[in-house]
Amino acid sequence: MNDLSRLAIHTITNKPWTLAQCVDKYVAAGVGGLSVWRNVIEPIGITEAARIVRSSGLRVPALVRGGFFPAFDVAKRQAALDDNKKCIDEAAAIGAEQVVLVVGAVPGMSLDDARKQIMEGIDRVLAHAAANKVKLSIEPLHPMYAADRSAINRMKEARLVCEQLKSPWLGIACDVYHVWWDPDLKSEIALAGQQKTLFGFHVCDWKTTLEDMLNDRGLMGEGVIDLKGIRADVERAGFDGMIEVEIFSNRHWARNQDEFLADILRAYKEHV
Amino acid sequence: MNDLSRLAIHTITNKPWTLAQCVDKYVAAGVGGLSVWRNVIEPIGITEAARIVRSSGLRVPALVRGGFFPAFDVAKRQAALDDNKKCIDEAAAIGAEQVVLVVGAVPGMSLDDARKQIMEGIDRVLAHAAANKVKLSIEPLHPMYAADRSAINRMKEARLVCEQLKSPWLGIACDVYHVWWDPDLKSEIALAGQQKTLFGFHVCDWKTTLEDMLNDRGLMGEGVIDLKGIRADVERAGFDGMIEVEIFSNRHWARNQDEFLADILRAYKEHV
Repeated sequence: MNDLSRLAIHTITNKPWTLAQCVDKYVAAGVGGLSVWRNVIEPIGITEAARIVRSSGLRVPALVRGGFFPAFDVAKRQAALDDNKKCIDEAAAIGAEQVVLVVGAVPGMSLDDARKQIMEGIDRVLAHAAANKVKLSIEPLHPMYAADRSAINRMKEARLVCEQLKSPWLGIACDVYHVWWDPDLKSEIALAGQQKTLFGFHVCDWKTTLEDMLNDRGLMGEGVIDLKGIRADVERAGFDGMIEVEIFSNRHWARNQDEFLADILRAYKEHV
Repeated sequence: MNDLSRLAIHTITNKPWTLAQCVDKYVAAGVGGLSVWRNVIEPIGITEAARIVRSSGLRVPALVRGGFFPAFDVAKRQAALDDNKKCIDEAAAIGAEQVVLVVGAVPGMSLDDARKQIMEGIDRVLAHAAANKVKLSIEPLHPMYAADRSAINRMKEARLVCEQLKSPWLGIACDVYHVWWDPDLKSEIALAGQQKTLFGFHVCDWKTTLEDMLNDRGLMGEGVIDLKGIRADVERAGFDGMIEVEIFSNRHWARNQDEFLADILRAYKEHV
């Protein structure tokens, strides 16, 4: 049944709203949780952000986002490690279950090298995550972001990192936007279930024609993704966490956000 | 050595030019070959197109493009088969060695179903290709085109079709734009070499930020792709065919095409 208790919305989805507004609106709508983007923490500070989130009673599947490990410059790589630790601290402060990792990529660096640096970077922050009881989830990003955002582009490559670093604190966030096209999706979801690494499940939709590579995601039902099918695969694999709606959309951000939120609830009930 | 004898340019790369102009300019520049897009045949007819191409002495690695097999409607699927046979006839007429297949995808059809219809469609035109001594090459398209252009998005899935249909007339066109990000690229190229299915090698570049999903490809050197590395892999796999430059670019099409051609030759020598 699609009640709203398992629905969590990423604050970026309602980008025009502050954290306090997101929390108030989601609570009023009966939504079960929210995932917090760092941009809404930044203007108010982590103490105030934690107070707002913790007093809401909402579940917080994720703080978004850490990662961006690879860099040509050693100092930059160190800065990324420091920032990831800070991100883990913030997750612990607001009570987020996991930090989502957009692992990074650098134009001009080979994907092999980037992947090595990513592995090393995750390895070096895992102990801090475990000490804070915050999970880290690798989010494979669509191959169209391989040049500059993520050198991990399929569930399989995320799994290989998890198998290598083997920790109960390291897993995968499966975002349908990035992986819906993958012929191995079904088998990789099943495998992630067996390996207990399926930490997150993000939904939105893939429109046939994108006007913008980053900010033209579809609301569920606006595109081609078999959301019910993938949800069934994810649940068959044992996933019982929050279902997170994460939509970057210039089109939807330009709308009245109360109306957009109402559409999200309807689309979630109908299409997920 | 990067002389121009192995360089072929796709007519679409110089979209503002007619077929006759492309042929004249490429011959004058010392380019070894061209691949012909059907849009330049259409206004003059196949007889005249064949005369222009055959009298030029240029090698013709490919006619572009057939494919687009899947459809919900049976009549549309039959029309696609007929059109593919016509395309093979045109390839034979102009002396093209292969027809490149953009295999198709249909919004709302599952990728599994689309892949089945693609397999069946290729199976049903293979005999016609063999009879005309024209090879068919499956071009895996970037996953960002999975919704509406191609349900085959990696070398691996193209290989699976080739293994299933097993014919000396069926192989793969490897276009770096589509597959550069794939962690399995190197091993799949090697495998295609062993299986004698590496029929085509297309180059251009992937710019970090695309302004348009279709028509913002980079000239070699403008982006992040390790062209020399992939060329080395392809040649290690035994490929000794033409190296085809295929660039869709609103930016470059808006330029003086003689200057763009000069840039292509320079970029080919420097970056491929």
